[in-house]
Amino acid sequence: MALPRLLQLLPRALRPQARPGCGRALHRAASALVPAAPDFNSFVARTNTCGELRSAHVGQEVTLYGWIQYQRQDLFLVLRDFQGLTQIIIPQDEKMPTGDIEVKVETAEILNSCKKLPFEIKDFIKKSEALRMQYRYLDLRSFQLQYNLRLRSQVVMKMREYLCNLHGFVDVETPTLFKRTPGGAKEFLVPSREAGKFYTLPQSPQQFKQLLMVGGLDRYFQVARCYRDEGSRPDRQPEFTQVDIEMSFVDQAGIQKLIEGLLQYSWPEERGSITTPFPSMTYEAALADYGTDKPDTRFGMKIVDISDFLRRSDIPFVQNALSYPHGTVKAICIPQGARYFKNKDLESLKVSAKSQFNQEIVEIICRPDGSLKSLLTKFLGEEQQSELIQVLNMQEDDVVLLAAGEHKQVCSALGSLRLESADLLEAAGLVLRDPRTFHFLWVVDFPLFLPKEENPTELESAHHPFTAPHPSDTSLLYSDPTKVRSQHYDLVLNGNEVGGGSIRIHSAEQQRFVLEKVLKEDSEVLSHLLEALEFGAPPHGGVALGLDRLISLIVDAPSIRDVIAFPKSFRGRDLMGNAPDFVTPEELEPYHIQVSWPLAEKEAKKN
Amino acid sequence: MALPRLLQLLPRALRPQARPGCGRALHRAASALVPAAPDFNSFVARTNTCGELRSAHVGQEVTLYGWIQYQRQDLFLVLRDFQGLTQIIIPQDEKMPTGDIEVKVETAEILNSCKKLPFEIKDFIKKSEALRMQYRYLDLRSFQLQYNLRLRSQVVMKMREYLCNLHGFVDVETPTLFKRTPGGAKEFLVPSREAGKFYTLPQSPQQFKQLLMVGGLDRYFQVARCYRDEGSRPDRQPEFTQVDIEMSFVDQAGIQKLIEGLLQYSWPEERGSITTPFPSMTYEAALADYGTDKPDTRFGMKIVDISDFLRRSDIPFVQNALSYPHGTVKAICIPQGARYFKNKDLESLKVSAKSQFNQEIVEIICRPDGSLKSLLTKFLGEEQQSELIQVLNMQEDDVVLLAAGEHKQVCSALGSLRLESADLLEAAGLVLRDPRTFHFLWVVDFPLFLPKEENPTELESAHHPFTAPHPSDTSLLYSDPTKVRSQHYDLVLNGNEVGGGSIRIHSAEQQRFVLEKVLKEDSEVLSHLLEALEFGAPPHGGVALGLDRLISLIVDAPSIRDVIAFPKSFRGRDLMGNAPDFVTPEELEPYHIQVSWPLAEKEAKKN
Repeated sequence: MALPRLLQLLPRALRPQARPGCGRALHRAASALVPAAPDFNSFVARTNTCGELRSAHVGQEVTLYGWIQYQRQDLFLVLRDFQGLTQIIIPQDEKMPTGDIEVKVETAEILNSCKKLPFEIKDFIKKSEALRMQYRYLDLRSFQLQYNLRLRSQVVMKMREYLCNLHGFVDVETPTLFKRTPGGAKEFLVPSREAGKFYTLPQSPQQFKQLLMVGGLDRYFQVARCYRDEGSRPDRQPEFTQVDIEMSFVDQAGIQKLIEGLLQYSWPEERGSITTPFPSMTYEAALADYGTDKPDTRFGMKIVDISDFLRRSDIPFVQNALSYPHGTVKAICIPQGARYFKNKDLESLKVSAKSQFNQEIVEIICRPDGSLKSLLTKFLGEEQQSELIQVLNMQEDDVVLLAAGEHKQVCSALGSLRLESADLLEAAGLVLRDPRTFHFLWVVDFPLFLPKEENPTELESAHHPFTAPHPSDTSLLYSDPTKVRSQHYDLVLNGNEVGGGSIRIHSAEQQRFVLEKVLKEDSEVLSHLLEALEFGAPPHGGVALGLDRLISLIVDAPSIRDVIAFPKSFRGRDLMGNAPDFVTPEELEPYHIQVSWPLAEKEAKKN
Repeated sequence: MALPRLLQLLPRALRPQARPGCGRALHRAASALVPAAPDFNSFVARTNTCGELRSAHVGQEVTLYGWIQYQRQDLFLVLRDFQGLTQIIIPQDEKMPTGDIEVKVETAEILNSCKKLPFEIKDFIKKSEALRMQYRYLDLRSFQLQYNLRLRSQVVMKMREYLCNLHGFVDVETPTLFKRTPGGAKEFLVPSREAGKFYTLPQSPQQFKQLLMVGGLDRYFQVARCYRDEGSRPDRQPEFTQVDIEMSFVDQAGIQKLIEGLLQYSWPEERGSITTPFPSMTYEAALADYGTDKPDTRFGMKIVDISDFLRRSDIPFVQNALSYPHGTVKAICIPQGARYFKNKDLESLKVSAKSQFNQEIVEIICRPDGSLKSLLTKFLGEEQQSELIQVLNMQEDDVVLLAAGEHKQVCSALGSLRLESADLLEAAGLVLRDPRTFHFLWVVDFPLFLPKEENPTELESAHHPFTAPHPSDTSLLYSDPTKVRSQHYDLVLNGNEVGGGSIRIHSAEQQRFVLEKVLKEDSEVLSHLLEALEFGAPPHGGVALGLDRLISLIVDAPSIRDVIAFPKSFRGRDLMGNAPDFVTPEELEPYHIQVSWPLAEKEAKKN
């Protein structure tokens, strides 16, 4: 590291670095997102950052701080900081470097030395994920991570301006040391000094935000740290951040308008603009058309129902499927599939549907001459075949994947194949999903309850037990709860869930009915919330945005780890600091706990 | 709760509530602290809040939401929300209420009913701390708590604007699931799914903020949740918030200027303005003059050293004290003490010095006739007595408390008596410390190391092991570490520590020397930090402000619990949700821990 003082500066001093986009984008980001450019040189002796010197500065005396990126024969060096690179010429007594402009270092001070780095700080250098994690503080020097973290900070700042300054929301911090919620199996425990008693780290501030509404706060938000112990799941983090919002006297349309305004206001200019209002789709339509509750609407290949068309055919497996309740035949048409798919691709799609959804798939290929190639053709007359081509809107070289069976299973399988097919087409060079195009979508009208997977005669909340029923379905709550739609809404971006929320139950009587009669849960553990609803709780609702996921989509990062300063590995470990770690039995004593060693380890310890 | 729609409004509709100051102050706060007044009515059907209607609104149709504060004979009611109260007249068919202006409710909807409240939502109603905690969501409806939380939100928002928008700081979230730090005996543990391995909840982001500087982030801040398990200590919370800041290439003066600018920018206008730069005092001077490292400089009564004066006397206990190294005789003069102190007060002060500091105190009272009353007078001639009056600047009715002994003990005892005396004088009606006067003070030049209390031949860090030595004392580090001053600085407000920070060690070699040679600690657990320092760590420093304490001083709250939405009791319990709580052995299983029940409870469980 060096502190050079330059009397004059070479206008060529700013060299493009390996991936110049990042350095420049960063600069644009800073000026686009904040009202006036912040002063990076306040409180320190620096006069300029390494990214901002231009011809206009020629002749000025400047003070720079940074890391030596490159050095040659004590003649010149390249200095790097968070904003860019600057070339420094060290004057030689004998020989002056030629050039248009004279440049002279007046003083330079080495502030610290540096061991050989485990990897160079250059974006094109490939390094292993484990090495990046172990030396995270070096990886943070990369332009890409600097860009991601700075953009994240600026987006959140804009969100706060929108909520706090423009719309009167109050930033309230809620506790993270709380108690177990019913069904909170994924909550971390924190032993207390009272024997046998534990705090838990909550998965969200759900209870607190509702209590704040009962407390008359009217409009609450928090950039909240949340915790979820999911063991090893790819691209999940044991701690994550949500932009948590709750309002009183609001309906679903009000919350949706708020979120649309929030995202539009805080959207980084350099990532284009977004259009509001966002389109809306019912859960039922999302499942039928895209086979998922988080459709990626950037491309077509929607699911087509051909039950009515094939009902007239004599295909045995089709007739069999249609004879059951909820029996259906559906298909997706993959444009140019026959041209872009490799031989093994079709096979792998069918294997995937079988293994993930226990769903058989029949393919239909449209030959270059317009004729169909399929197991099915022998069951279909020529007229029926051309009708099928019309119904599915098939072109030459298209591939159709067809599935017969129960509605939800068929939709889910085809929805999954739709995405896998898109991956395959893109791997073959077709661009279907531009990562710089942002398709927001509200998914609404979810069912309020779902049958429990392990025991389908019992019901569980589709989202959480505080979700209010759809106003049109309130009476069904008492007669046929499985038919009740909820006032839950999900926000989907490019096929990823980036937020969700609901209007909440504000009647103590209705909340008690849901907990005790529908969900058959012990409401005792929520007695404080039920009691609060009895003390004049206002109608209220809210939403939570998954900040890590949202930012990773905005910057097109492959993982949420790329927008978190110090992420954990997918096993929940911190590879830099080596957490979690062993502690001594003495350290456990004040908490009245001891380790129950698994038998194998116990034996190993003995020997 | 009711939703009245009014066609016309009574201009007298806004009634002063029990403590009108809060409602009005709140309103002023909102307009003073944010650039433009936020829109509280966006996204909902409300046209106005209950605090803003004025004569100018007469004739307008408005929609209000709120809680019924008061109701009489279905004739009128008072509606309350977070901004104030509005009087609503319900028109009667037969008889119209008289008045200057006609007011008519068009529609009113009861949105929820309300059980009898455990206490009324009126600020003058006294309620027990336990009841307030149990029904925190009701207590939150009080104007005082609404005011405190809203002001807190606005102050933090201004701090963010200053740091992020004006000075280029990056808001970075750091992990709260980490690993034990050396000496981190007060860190909560979080069991992981790996047998015997635990995360800890860090007391501050200290390591991460330094690693961010090594990572070239240059300027970091975070409103950080921190954790400290201190068992039962009054007015401490197991989780608390600090405004955490770190900068590269900065010195102590730079950080101090930053904090002064930050506080000046974010200071709520209605609390007056603050003057910068803040005065500065060395630790040594603070101890000598005020007997503490956090002097309350709003009033005098400073400690006066009278060793030189009394060295000439023949007072045995004075001569004895002065014969020891660091022996000293000091005193404080309490103006008008003889008039304001009750009989028992002087005695209680002496008992307190004896029990807390094992320090004998001798009093000297200046009689109305100017003569002295004290055990000491018999040892002092008339001339000496009048010299003593001069040295101590005594007036009639003043009381002097005198102590002889070891320097630090004498100073600490007198510093404590100075504050206790101020409490007594104020209880008697004198105003010494105006809570609306804000005296900031930097305390600097702390010792870097202190002798361990349990073993004075060993040293421990006065603050933490990453604090850099004072530049003038660097060489002493290797010869006489006890003499080294540090680059630590504390920010004191009205006698309370509200912040602290330091320039950090950025040389790996110096950091290793401090850990291994001076502190004799195992540096293995900090190997990642030491390694990071070897990879070109920039000079850096930072500060952390205790947000809860700072806000509580700004709003003059008796406890930090009054500026936290859901605080814990002083035993670390949440009385509303009943946390911490028991969990089942099955819930402990995935974490490989079991409870070690204390013997007594084990027996009780058996029976």
